[in-house]
Formats: sequence, structure tokens, C-alpha cells
Amino acid sequence: MTGLREQILRIAQEARAAARQLASISTQQKNQALQAMVKGLRQRREVILDANATDVESARQEGLSAALIDRLTLNATRLQEMEASIEAVVTLPDPVGEVIRKWQQPNGLVIQKVRVPLGVIGIIYESRPNVTSECASLCLKSGNAVILRGGAESFRSNQAIGSVLRDALRSAGLPEAAVSLIPTAERAGVDAMLQLDSLIDVIIPRGGEALIRKIVETSRIPVIKHAKGVCHVYVDDAADLAMAQAIVMNAKCQRPATCNAMETLLVHERVAKTFLPDIIRHLQEAKVEVRGDERTRAIVPGVKAATEEDWVTEYLDLILSVRVVSSLDEAIAHISRYGSSHSDAIVTKDEAHATRFTQGVDSAAVYVNASTRFTDGFQFGLGAEIGISTDRLHARGPMGLEELTTYKYVVHGTGQLRD
Amino acid sequence: MTGLREQILRIAQEARAAARQLASISTQQKNQALQAMVKGLRQRREVILDANATDVESARQEGLSAALIDRLTLNATRLQEMEASIEAVVTLPDPVGEVIRKWQQPNGLVIQKVRVPLGVIGIIYESRPNVTSECASLCLKSGNAVILRGGAESFRSNQAIGSVLRDALRSAGLPEAAVSLIPTAERAGVDAMLQLDSLIDVIIPRGGEALIRKIVETSRIPVIKHAKGVCHVYVDDAADLAMAQAIVMNAKCQRPATCNAMETLLVHERVAKTFLPDIIRHLQEAKVEVRGDERTRAIVPGVKAATEEDWVTEYLDLILSVRVVSSLDEAIAHISRYGSSHSDAIVTKDEAHATRFTQGVDSAAVYVNASTRFTDGFQFGLGAEIGISTDRLHARGPMGLEELTTYKYVVHGTGQLRD
Repeated sequence: MTGLREQILRIAQEARAAARQLASISTQQKNQALQAMVKGLRQRREVILDANATDVESARQEGLSAALIDRLTLNATRLQEMEASIEAVVTLPDPVGEVIRKWQQPNGLVIQKVRVPLGVIGIIYESRPNVTSECASLCLKSGNAVILRGGAESFRSNQAIGSVLRDALRSAGLPEAAVSLIPTAERAGVDAMLQLDSLIDVIIPRGGEALIRKIVETSRIPVIKHAKGVCHVYVDDAADLAMAQAIVMNAKCQRPATCNAMETLLVHERVAKTFLPDIIRHLQEAKVEVRGDERTRAIVPGVKAATEEDWVTEYLDLILSVRVVSSLDEAIAHISRYGSSHSDAIVTKDEAHATRFTQGVDSAAVYVNASTRFTDGFQFGLGAEIGISTDRLHARGPMGLEELTTYKYVVHGTGQLRD
Repeated sequence: MTGLREQILRIAQEARAAARQLASISTQQKNQALQAMVKGLRQRREVILDANATDVESARQEGLSAALIDRLTLNATRLQEMEASIEAVVTLPDPVGEVIRKWQQPNGLVIQKVRVPLGVIGIIYESRPNVTSECASLCLKSGNAVILRGGAESFRSNQAIGSVLRDALRSAGLPEAAVSLIPTAERAGVDAMLQLDSLIDVIIPRGGEALIRKIVETSRIPVIKHAKGVCHVYVDDAADLAMAQAIVMNAKCQRPATCNAMETLLVHERVAKTFLPDIIRHLQEAKVEVRGDERTRAIVPGVKAATEEDWVTEYLDLILSVRVVSSLDEAIAHISRYGSSHSDAIVTKDEAHATRFTQGVDSAAVYVNASTRFTDGFQFGLGAEIGISTDRLHARGPMGLEELTTYKYVVHGTGQLRD
């Protein structure tokens, strides 16, 4: 066993011990620690910004794209947002201890299904230092210990933030090991973590397909994937076309770099000739590059041809693929074949069509007459989220505090025996 | 890619397609298919018993233990029990389509959290042919396709039962691929299945530690472990000792080969001298071999010494380890260190002690003044169960129909856009 492996084993063991403590501490204590984190971040802004400046400088030298450098960069405003996001978690209700269900069996046993923390959560994420404090605060509030592993480019920023968070935990009388960081930017650190299935209960990876693929292949720990969103809007033959236009523009353009933005527009053939020329003009005016199938290009000449690759691509950019379909069923079949089970919408005035769509499309969120952009913990009223699960087990869609918990059965008897 | 891998890939692809169909069929259709399964099993008893006789004969020649051969053996009574267990599933409520929660956001969006099937479930289990039809019926009723892989010794029995189940599905107008069997007793069949994470949503392994370990190491698919139960009864200093005696005898002796039977008895030092001599005599009269720590042996001479290994062992037999503890906290610490987070009980009249125990012991089921033997889907009133999860993610404890489902969000709007 190498030194690094031993180090990560120790981190996980300490996290496990911390998780046992966290499971039974009061909401007040957790909130005090969260407030100490806010205070710490405020007091040590300079240290964090210095560390971040070094990260940004290295990233520039390594030639990272402007978009990635933007996500990596901290400044006074972003630090304030990080502080505000922890303060928002303070105000969220504590899910731990909730009696989800309580009933009595005929033999007199009283069974309670009680919400408890998951335990130790491993989170692997992009080079976005603000995610470090967001994930830490959500895990703490839900009574979990967390082991964080941000992108290599943000290593120094994360170390600085992590140090503030751990000092805050200690000052609030909680175990520092409630929040740990993998102490290396090397890939071997992740690999070692992914073997520790007796100490870590779940891995939540956020990021690109290749990263998530590698994690799924390597991990012995259950993984809740936060993978890509290839989201669709289907404009039905019974659609209100003005509404459809507004939803399409919002789903594509309001914030194209998010996973719940639309990547493919499907239009019923009966309304295609009316709908497509206008919407494509509007999209192009909004600087969206449109790629269409043959039928789209027959209606709107000059549109670039979409390839098979386009239908499975998460552009995260001002690009849209467009396809004309002959029926609602063809739309559902397209989504089932090419989609990523994230967020998909139908625009229709026909309730029967809406029902067939919501039953037939197997996505975390299925919309009738609304933009796909609403798939989000805040927009759903669940509070802050750790991310959006594209998996089926345990949690689908936005994962808030409740989704970071599990349950146990607490059974009270008066001496009951099994016959 | 070898022929076997291709074959298993095709099975999983067909299961995935079947799962899409099953997700939206009516309860009535599913019940008709279940009733056709019962009828098929009745009509083809001879074929199944013949196949089973061949399995049993091979097992005898290979020198399998009497206990394993007993679990493998079918007869008229056991076939009737298999039929009755499917009939019981017919009467259970269909979990699919249940609106778990429904609310309206301030912007008018109506959000429904709707229960849907998990999708494709892979189940790996012991050489117990009755499990084949039990698992198939539960997966079908919850709208899931299932891929079954029973122990190698039961291969011919399972093929015969599987063939009946698939004929029943077809006769009821449902896809045969709703129930599939891995068509080989070779280990390579499991290995191939465990790679198909884009087609199979969850693996549920039941069986010994070594098997489950291997699956966790190999699988790219999330695994819900049904592992061992090292269950404890702690007799508190505030216990009703007559009740404690009855619970201990029940938890150990009523059916020792089950995962919810007690394996370790913990006794508070203040009641040890009163409690231990009697209970150990009773246990020994019931043919239980008692293994004690030093303090137990000081009170009841002649008891065999327990080793460190005993505290982590699931005997599944008439053997019990006994330890005297100095405090409730020491009891909790012992369970936390050596237990398997399955089922643990305290016997006490002191409510504060009970609360400390139920909060401090992190097991799927924690009991106050009742036998650990109640951890079971039927006993909890959940109906039939696919098994008892010892994992934390998605489902803990008895997994019934509800635990074989997930959810999706169905969102109805009137043209809402994100600002």
C-alpha cells in the first residue's frame, strides 16, 4: 500500500467516525458550524483569493479555455455568493429525524420509518471552487460527512476554502473530518477513494462523460451520476404555437451552458411549415446555430444538415438540432433513443397527448407547456441542490437535502416474539 | 466479443425494451400475467420436478451439504408454496403511478412526484429455485423487467421454471423478455451481465460474503447488497429480565438460519449475574452452543471462550456469542464495531436508554423490547419482499414492491419561462 493510499484510507476512516457523530447532533449545532463557515470565509477572503490567483495563473499558462478559466476564477462577488449560499442552507429545514411514516402492526409493534443521514459522501466535481463550500454545507446540514475532490486546476483554491471550513467545524465543536479534501491533484487520489466501499457510502460525480465513465468503471462504491442533459422540446400538432415559440426560445437561449437547456427541437409535421420558418429566424437572430434533418431543411432552406452525432450531443452552447416528426409516438421514440433522461417537454393543448407524453418519456423531469430550464432544486422548491441526478436509483433529478438522506426502521414493542 | 457476451448483451437489450413496455401497462394486465404464471406452474409441475430431480442428483454427486440440498429440492408442497406466493403478489397494491407528492410553485407550475418502475433489475441468488418465481412476480408487479441468475446447482430447475414464466407472459400479451434467465451456469455469464450499466439499472445480490464481494468489485451497475446479519440483543440494566429471556430465546432459536436471527447477546454488568446463569442454561437446553467473553465465563464457568472472530460471525446456526458490557455506550460501540447494520434490539424499561440506543445504533432495523426476527416484509406489513438490504442507498431493510420503484417529476405549466 502506497503512502497516498494510506493517507486516503485514514481520511475515509476519520470521515466515517465523524459521520457517526454528525448523525445525532442537533440542528442548532449544525447551523452554528455553518455560520462559523460564513464568518471564516469572510475573514480569510484574501488568503482564498491569493490561492485562487495562483490557480488561475497556472490554468492560463496551461492554456485552459476562457470558459473554464471563468468558472475557476473567484472574486469578491463570487465569495459573497458562496457565503450567501451557506446562509441559505442555514434557513433550510433539517431533514434528519423526520418520521417519514409510522404505523402499528396487528401484534402491537409500532414501526417508524425515520430519516437518517446517508453517512459518508464522496463528491467529484469540476474546477469550480464555489462548489466546494456549497457541497460541504449541504452535506453538513443533512448530517453527512463529505470527502471532496474538485478539479486539479482548482486545487489550491479548494485547499484554502477547505481549511476555512474545517477550522469553522472545530470552532463549533464538531469534528473537522466532517469535511475532507483529497490531498492531491493526482488521479491516483480518486482511484484510491473509489476502492473504499466499506467506508464511503456513495460517490456523486459531476462533470464530463469521460470522467463519469471512468468513475463508474473503477468504483466499488455506488455512484449517483450527474451526467449530461440532452433535453428536448416537442411541439405537438395541437400546440399553441405562440407559447411553443416562447418556450423554445427560453429553453435554448436563457442559459445555454446548463444541463437543463434544450439541445433538440422536435416539431410535428402538421405544424412544421407554419412553425419552423419563424422560430428558426428568431433563433438565428439570437445567434443560435441551427442544424436540421432533411424535412426541416426542405421547409427552411439554408439550414445546416444535422448528423446522427447531433442527436446525442449536449452542446451546452448556442447550437440546436431540429427534427420534423410524423407523430407523437415518433417524438417519444426519438427521445427514448437519443435523449439522456434528464428533462423533456411537450407543448400541446391536447390533454390526451400530454398524458401519453408524460407516461411515455422516461426522464427525471417531464414538462407539459413549460420550459425545461425549471429542472433545478430552487425552481422545484426543494431548496439548494447538490446537483441533478441522471440516474434512477435513490434519487432522480434535483438532489436536495432530503435526497442526501436514507432511513432506518425504529420498532417499539412490549416483548413481541415471532411465532 | 465472445458468443456468450453477445448473447447476454442481447438479453439485456430485450429486457430494456420490455421494461419500456411494462412501465405503462395496467395493473390488470400484470395481474393476468401473474395468474397465467400460477396456472403454468400447476400444469407443468412434472417437468419442473423432473428438472429439479436432475439438479438434486448432480448436487448429491458433487457432495453438497444436506442443508444446501434441502434448499435446492422442490416437491409438491414447495411448488404449491411458489404458486401461493405469486397469488399473494396479485393481491398487493400496484405501486406504479402513485403520486408521492404534488405541489404548486408560486409561478403556477404544478409539480407531481410520480412513482415509476426502476427499469431492468438483475438478481443474483442462491441455489433456491423458489426464489426464481418469487423475484419474477415481484419485479413484474412493480413494472420492472428482471434478469435472473440463480446458483449453478439449480440451473435446470430455473430453466424449467423460467420457461413456464415466459410462456405465461406471452399468453398474457406481455413481452417474454420481462423475465430472462442468464443462459449458463458459468461465472462468465455474471461477469458479462455486470458490465452492462447502460442497460441494467440495479443488481441485487443475495448470498454469501465472498460472492457479494466479487460482485461489488466487478460491477459497473449500482449494487444493493443483501449481505449478512450479525444481529445483537442488548439486555440493559433497566430490562425486564423475564421479557429479555423470552426475546433472547426467540431471536436465537425460533429460526436460527435466517439473517435476522441474533448472533451476539450483550448484557449489562449490573444484571449479568442474575440474568446469565438462567439464560445460558435455557439456551444450552435448546442445544445452543454458547461462546462467552472473560466476564461471562467468570459468571458461568464451563462456557467456551469467544474469540475476536466470533463477534463478526454470522453463525446461521445454534451458536451464540455472549459479552458482558459496562454500559449502554459500550453496547452501542460493540454493535457499531462488529455488527452488520441489519437488526439490533435493546431490552429496557428506561425510555431514555431506549432513545439513546435507537439513535446510536445505525442499523436498518432497531428494536426496543422486541425480537430481531421481525425484520421481514410480511412482518412489517409491506407485503412480500425481494430480500433485506444491508446497504444504505435507495433501500434499507425489507425491500418490497415500493422499494423496486423510483420516481419522476411530471410538471404541468401554462407556458412558464425561466427568468
